[in-house]
Amino acid sequence: MNYKVEKLKVNYKTLEEFKKFKEYGLQELSMLEDLEANIIENDSESPFYGIYFGDKLVARMSLYQIEARFDRYFEPAQDYLELWKLEVLPDYQNKGYGQALVEFAKGFGLPIKTNPRVKSKAFWGKMGFESVNYDMERDLGENPLVWFPAGVKEQTH
Amino acid sequence: MNYKVEKLKVNYKTLEEFKKFKEYGLQELSMLEDLEANIIENDSESPFYGIYFGDKLVARMSLYQIEARFDRYFEPAQDYLELWKLEVLPDYQNKGYGQALVEFAKGFGLPIKTNPRVKSKAFWGKMGFESVNYDMERDLGENPLVWFPAGVKEQTH
Repeated sequence: MNYKVEKLKVNYKTLEEFKKFKEYGLQELSMLEDLEANIIENDSESPFYGIYFGDKLVARMSLYQIEARFDRYFEPAQDYLELWKLEVLPDYQNKGYGQALVEFAKGFGLPIKTNPRVKSKAFWGKMGFESVNYDMERDLGENPLVWFPAGVKEQTH
Repeated sequence: MNYKVEKLKVNYKTLEEFKKFKEYGLQELSMLEDLEANIIENDSESPFYGIYFGDKLVARMSLYQIEARFDRYFEPAQDYLELWKLEVLPDYQNKGYGQALVEFAKGFGLPIKTNPRVKSKAFWGKMGFESVNYDMERDLGENPLVWFPAGVKEQTH
């Protein structure tokens, strides 16, 4: 399937759609407060990307580019993408929406790190992500998975 | 209730007990591999603290002291504790085990940050923890909760 991935703008409609997703938390609440308090404008840029089915948001993820000087995962150290809140609404799962979002993220050509919250190892494996060697100081309670573009490998400490 | 909180040692018995907890992940697998490969010795120090009922581990948490130079949460910037994997086995919940572990952590007198995975806001509120002002670059997809000892407040950016 060929889904159209869109960068999501911060507005009341999008924030209302976000409430349908399980991983609704401080990030979404903060965006809502900032909008209500006019700290950010309507239709501001957000770190979210999504896929619509008709006018309904059915899948989303957040992407943020971490600067090379903070990179503790990749060799050579470089800018990389942190991916979080990848989620597809229950009725739309197993139809390729999650894969379309991950493929979109890979399209930037940067290494990707994610810290999946739910048991989804089979999905991430299929997407070419692998576990890092756990480093407590860096990873604490996380279970990081990473994707390496060509020429990139894991940083050793 | 007055529960005895113990620092847990890394050994096969403890790692077997860990399998009963939901938040079993890369951290535990890595400890097991290190033990099997003799990278760490039997009964090495671990970042885990726990409470036993008889000889059964029924509650645990992980604690790690973050150095002041990495502190992006507290004012003045200082060493603080990161707390994760606070979990009580289902049959032992609502008996004060979780509270005993959190009180133990507070006993170090340092600020505490945690990033709860499950819907447990009421519990953390009762423990005196509060939400931070969300900062995307710092918090990404996290929902950090913090506890301030006397004289400490939230860092502003």
